[in-house]
Amino acid sequence: MEVEMIKTNSIAALKPKAPLERYTFERRDPKTKDVVIDIKYCGICHSDIHMTRDEWGMGSPFPMVPGHEIAGIVIQVGSGVTKYKVGDRVGVGCMVDSCRECSHCKADLENYCVDGNTMTYGSIERDGSGVTQGGYSDRIVVNEDFVLKIPDNLPLDKAAPLLCAGITTYSPLRHWNAGPGKKVAVMGLGGLGHMAVKLAKAMGADVTVLSRSESKRKDAKHLGADDFIITAEEGALEKNALRFDLIINTIAVSDIDMSSYFSLLKLDGALVSVGAPEKPLSIHPFSLILMRRTYAGSGIGGIKETQEMLKFCGEHNITPEIEVIAAQKVNEAYERVLTSDVRYRFVIDMATL
Amino acid sequence: MEVEMIKTNSIAALKPKAPLERYTFERRDPKTKDVVIDIKYCGICHSDIHMTRDEWGMGSPFPMVPGHEIAGIVIQVGSGVTKYKVGDRVGVGCMVDSCRECSHCKADLENYCVDGNTMTYGSIERDGSGVTQGGYSDRIVVNEDFVLKIPDNLPLDKAAPLLCAGITTYSPLRHWNAGPGKKVAVMGLGGLGHMAVKLAKAMGADVTVLSRSESKRKDAKHLGADDFIITAEEGALEKNALRFDLIINTIAVSDIDMSSYFSLLKLDGALVSVGAPEKPLSIHPFSLILMRRTYAGSGIGGIKETQEMLKFCGEHNITPEIEVIAAQKVNEAYERVLTSDVRYRFVIDMATL
Repeated sequence: MEVEMIKTNSIAALKPKAPLERYTFERRDPKTKDVVIDIKYCGICHSDIHMTRDEWGMGSPFPMVPGHEIAGIVIQVGSGVTKYKVGDRVGVGCMVDSCRECSHCKADLENYCVDGNTMTYGSIERDGSGVTQGGYSDRIVVNEDFVLKIPDNLPLDKAAPLLCAGITTYSPLRHWNAGPGKKVAVMGLGGLGHMAVKLAKAMGADVTVLSRSESKRKDAKHLGADDFIITAEEGALEKNALRFDLIINTIAVSDIDMSSYFSLLKLDGALVSVGAPEKPLSIHPFSLILMRRTYAGSGIGGIKETQEMLKFCGEHNITPEIEVIAAQKVNEAYERVLTSDVRYRFVIDMATL
Repeated sequence: MEVEMIKTNSIAALKPKAPLERYTFERRDPKTKDVVIDIKYCGICHSDIHMTRDEWGMGSPFPMVPGHEIAGIVIQVGSGVTKYKVGDRVGVGCMVDSCRECSHCKADLENYCVDGNTMTYGSIERDGSGVTQGGYSDRIVVNEDFVLKIPDNLPLDKAAPLLCAGITTYSPLRHWNAGPGKKVAVMGLGGLGHMAVKLAKAMGADVTVLSRSESKRKDAKHLGADDFIITAEEGALEKNALRFDLIINTIAVSDIDMSSYFSLLKLDGALVSVGAPEKPLSIHPFSLILMRRTYAGSGIGGIKETQEMLKFCGEHNITPEIEVIAAQKVNEAYERVLTSDVRYRFVIDMATL
């Protein structure tokens, strides 16, 4: 029996920089290995704003339904699906497919697929059949290999942001060995930053928040940070020189004095950017040569590691701080994200669609 | 018996940006642990030009006798010297002292001394007794712990550049594991670059030279490079994407498209700068995030590693390609360095002083 195309309600940008509005489209019929998910919640990531405004100049197609922090319930499975069944609590993150053949995919690093992974929205499907559309919607059809199990003790609204903000910070923390005896600093206390604090702390590291202003000191402590440094404060950077093994940079702006942040790193320390601003950063090699420091980038995480992260969050009962909003508040939420007026992640309740 | 101050003939910049000229001064009396060296040869490093022109804005003192690629013969030792005797063939590199107490010094990484090492020239001595003066001179007095043995089979003129150009490239090649099975690229085929090629090859790596023009292809092969890529050639970078584990950047200019070089790195690959231009580089986090790449810096090497490098060069009979010049040709040589008209290192013959 042919399954009918799946009618999907969503919130979309019909063209670049346009406010998001209601948009109805059809998802593909589930194929053998596909899972159909009733989306309950979807987080709002800063990159959704970049993408719907085409600020990275990627020339992605429109209309665009953003959203890659998806949590929901399985309502249908293809005949060949073995990992999920109807009723399962699941998530989908930033990608829905990859080439599966390159050395990176074979090493469970689909996030670094040589051929480029298929992003949850704004990508051409690998079979050329259409354009992917994201999670600001009530249904999604995803190959089971790119679907994640959400631990039973994590509520779906709070689990949603783990699929991007969670894995994006978890992966570099693991790769650069955050853990007992390591001093980790987090630049910026936003959606990603506050997850980095919680995760690094749960991994056993000593965690410091680097913030431009006093306003988030209380929150930082509440989230588990051991220390808080106001970077704009006279002498603050000098006093903390050579202190950190690892700095996670969640500040997606380019007009910051990177040298002053590098100076906080120990010998062989690493500063890792997990967010990308529109413009390049200005980096003087001297600030790296001085203590053999490294500046690196990290992009989300592979599916295996994402599942490991969700398990870790379940075991440590780690969830983001969220503000659940109705679908019609999305444009307002975008403005608030841009002014950092969110503590710490907006999550859209799809029941309001 | 008091030893007399040591009269020293040199070539110095009397003030910033001034042409170098003959200058006579006195070295300190050798202290208990000091070695007095009759300098036979001194290499010309690009940083000598930066320093004598105060282009890094370090505010170093003048007159300045540059030179930190020193090779000579021990002619006198202090009463407490145990490592050297009169007649030994020795070298001095970029530093002549360090705090010796910080964790980096204790780990044989005096090059990353927390207190700042005492540079061979342009530094204040740790006891405040004066300013260090470098190797464009016929005598130098150095604490034995910062003096290196030069293997018998390496001629002194060719050994001199190993003390900076050699260790500056050897150290990152070792730290980032250049060796069998690793693909290493070298940006720029100058004083440092040509040493990087020889050393990486001797370590067993597959070595490629990245050059802006065809002109050095023959030399690259002659030096041992396995491949040569003209970066300006249409499609050259695309064709070599994801190819290298490690890229050593010896190009000390800032107006280069770093993203195109990063694209040549494999997953988790590293691009390491060993030279510093006047201005910062423009680096877009995307080019690092994409394949979890790192951009790093490395500064010379510790004394222990420098000795290890000299032993390695002795065993593999590795020396730089040099052009020996008379002292009076130094200003001319500086101009030729700036136009890359040197294959590959100028070395001053101190007998001409």
